[in-house]
Amino acid sequence: MDMASDAEDRAMRWAIALASRSIGATSPNPIVGCVILDAAGQSVGEGFHAYAGGPHAEIRALAEAGVRAKGGTAVVTLEPCNHTGRTGPCTQALIAAGVTRVVVAVPDPNPTAAGGAATLRAAGVDVEVGLRGDEAAAGNRAWLVSTRRAAAGDPRPYVIWKLAASLDGRSAAADGSSQWITSPAARSDVHILRSSCDAIMAGVGTVLADDPQLTVRDPATGAPATRQPLRVVVDSQGRTPTDAHVRDSAARTWVATAAEVGTGPDGRVDLAALCTELFNRGHRRVLLEGGPRLSGAFLAAGLVDEVVAYVAPKLLGDGPTAVLDAGVTTIDDAIGLEITDVARIGPDLRITAVPTTAPKGE
Amino acid sequence: MDMASDAEDRAMRWAIALASRSIGATSPNPIVGCVILDAAGQSVGEGFHAYAGGPHAEIRALAEAGVRAKGGTAVVTLEPCNHTGRTGPCTQALIAAGVTRVVVAVPDPNPTAAGGAATLRAAGVDVEVGLRGDEAAAGNRAWLVSTRRAAAGDPRPYVIWKLAASLDGRSAAADGSSQWITSPAARSDVHILRSSCDAIMAGVGTVLADDPQLTVRDPATGAPATRQPLRVVVDSQGRTPTDAHVRDSAARTWVATAAEVGTGPDGRVDLAALCTELFNRGHRRVLLEGGPRLSGAFLAAGLVDEVVAYVAPKLLGDGPTAVLDAGVTTIDDAIGLEITDVARIGPDLRITAVPTTAPKGE
Ligand SMILES: NC(=O)c1ccc[n+]([C@@H]2O[C@H](COP(=O)([O-])OP(=O)(O)OC[C@H]3O[C@@H](n4cnc5c(N)ncnc54)[C@H](OP(=O)(O)O)[C@@H]3O)[C@@H](O)[C@H]2O)c1
Ligand SMILES: NC(=O)c1ccc[n+]([C@@H]2O[C@H](COP(=O)([O-])OP(=O)(O)OC[C@H]3O[C@@H](n4cnc5c(N)ncnc54)[C@H](OP(=O)(O)O)[C@@H]3O)[C@@H](O)[C@H]2O)c1
Repeated sequence: MDMASDAEDRAMRWAIALASRSIGATSPNPIVGCVILDAAGQSVGEGFHAYAGGPHAEIRALAEAGVRAKGGTAVVTLEPCNHTGRTGPCTQALIAAGVTRVVVAVPDPNPTAAGGAATLRAAGVDVEVGLRGDEAAAGNRAWLVSTRRAAAGDPRPYVIWKLAASLDGRSAAADGSSQWITSPAARSDVHILRSSCDAIMAGVGTVLADDPQLTVRDPATGAPATRQPLRVVVDSQGRTPTDAHVRDSAARTWVATAAEVGTGPDGRVDLAALCTELFNRGHRRVLLEGGPRLSGAFLAAGLVDEVVAYVAPKLLGDGPTAVLDAGVTTIDDAIGLEITDVARIGPDLRITAVPTTAPKGE
Repeated sequence: MDMASDAEDRAMRWAIALASRSIGATSPNPIVGCVILDAAGQSVGEGFHAYAGGPHAEIRALAEAGVRAKGGTAVVTLEPCNHTGRTGPCTQALIAAGVTRVVVAVPDPNPTAAGGAATLRAAGVDVEVGLRGDEAAAGNRAWLVSTRRAAAGDPRPYVIWKLAASLDGRSAAADGSSQWITSPAARSDVHILRSSCDAIMAGVGTVLADDPQLTVRDPATGAPATRQPLRVVVDSQGRTPTDAHVRDSAARTWVATAAEVGTGPDGRVDLAALCTELFNRGHRRVLLEGGPRLSGAFLAAGLVDEVVAYVAPKLLGDGPTAVLDAGVTTIDDAIGLEITDVARIGPDLRITAVPTTAPKGE
């Protein structure tokens, strides 16, 4: 097996960039980018997987390359699929096009799709796996974690818990006012985060208190994005009002009741069952936007994979906190996190962290 | 007036570094560093002001330079003093040594010491002010702010409020346990912060609950530092137990009672009067270490100049918060901060911020 050439490395960087164009749009599929190099190492075709059910990245890139793919190399961010899903297997298309080498960033953890590299090798194709693997995996983190977990018998989406609070941990002032605790820049960033997710979830407490719309919008103009994540209200008894904003026509909505999902030990919606159901409905990356009680319950159940905290440089000294009842009573039982990123977003800080007890399936 | 030469710029950087050696040791004086260059621009003497009552930086540097100062340049981080305090005026010493040029970083805001530049100029010395002014001012921020404020009729120290909390703003778990919410690295950093201050202050609530020692120690070995800040307990009725740690012989302690300091509108220690008294006793940089109630009262009174928050990557969901009753009831009245620094300290974050309503005197 040859080491990847400079041309292949450049092609992989481009393929990763291509893949990222459809972040948030491909669930239950991963994002994938592909570049075809001809026998001389020239780029002759590129493609990405734009939406579930649409053509795979490799098929689009091969179509663009045409006969120039023959004797060439396919550079692809994820191991080509080997199964006939909504589209035919990419391995066969690559073999049929006469590609003689395939460079892959990340192996496919999906048991039904995997085996692509082996099939290609059996057909005499030179396959290299791992080029810029970490970089390519980052964009698919939610998909990879949830897919590996499902393969291990625990199907549930990657859950990102977003909170917004003052430096002293208050999510609203004593009188309940919280508009706006964070800056316009941070609110914009939240809409970008929302747009990267398949579903946005909130507790009925938040719906009753704030009547949020839970859509992806341009925060400056209010204009809604074309693609809207599913809105999920966790609402044991179905108390979400019929005229709640979250029920408007701007996006689809699921009011998840205990009757439909199942009842947990506390008589409320069984959150593990809710997560399994979200996975089964095709959701891989879910944003949990609060409130404090639902967030606490998700944390206590170990169902949070990532925390994104927007911290405003303000002090309140009173008012509701961002999380309640996370099942911790003493300091040694604190939910441990590891900070993976800190960014200044306007005047605010965005702190990204992951639980130190690695999510199952990783 | 000549522009500063490269040699002078290098000398100023070194003078700033020299000055910083005595951070925390010079109150009520500023930190000052000085380098003497001979007529050829060679460094021939250096000095810093090590402690109040000790020789000024210029005097030490001139002593080292001896006759080589004649026709040379003094590079000094603060405008040389013009008054006879515990030591003679530096301006006269510089003139007597035959220095022909003085390069100053920061003008002296102290009305009794100021006028140094004018005196030097009147004696025919070439004076340039402002070289690396911001850099030099940073190390003296507490002294400069409190001195300017005193000149404006509001004498009180620069107060740094330190808090340690989980990402969700809890300073202890539900059962009160808080040892240790932050990492050894963060606790080490707190000892460095303490050592940069003249006094460490806590409310009697914290003393009764935690019995802290409030000294500067090597956190690894427990060995105490040679120089210890004054310990101040804010204790309206003098409830600090006679056997409290804070009363041990490791450092001086002031139990500030309402009887001694004065009574505020709520019947407790008058915090503004407390601050004036701390200033009058020579303290310029005071660390407020909590607890939540005293911190809230300081914030509500607008007596905090800087916030240093150690944020541990943990979630607690319950337990006491880092601040209580800061006088804010609605979001528009939130105490606004501007983040000036964010640093990773081991696994924790240290967020430094200043109130956006600039402290009086700045
Ligand atoms: N600043 C922020 O980041 C932010 C974000 C969101 C909300 N908030 C604030 O949070 C407040 C609402 O707080 P909240 O705690 O009442 O609302 P919440 O967390 O949104 O909703 C809690 C409710 O969810 C339902 N639920 C269903 N299954 C559950 C389960 N397994 N575990 C826990 N809850 C379950 C429960 O009601 P049922 O049992 O009836 O279903 C519960 O009362 C509002 O004032 C809002 O402004 C702040
Ligand atoms: N994690 C952290 O960063 C941290 C740091 C420190 C403390 N703590 C925790 O904080 C808890 C103690 O909290 P706390 O709020 O009771 O203690 P506190 O803030 O240390 O002390 C409050 C007391 O200070 C006295 N005081 C005097 N003048 C005052 C004034 N003008 N305004 C307000 N208070 C004044 C009052 O008692 P009198 O009127 O009787 O004088 C008041 O009850 C402990 O559990 C400790 O563990 C946490």
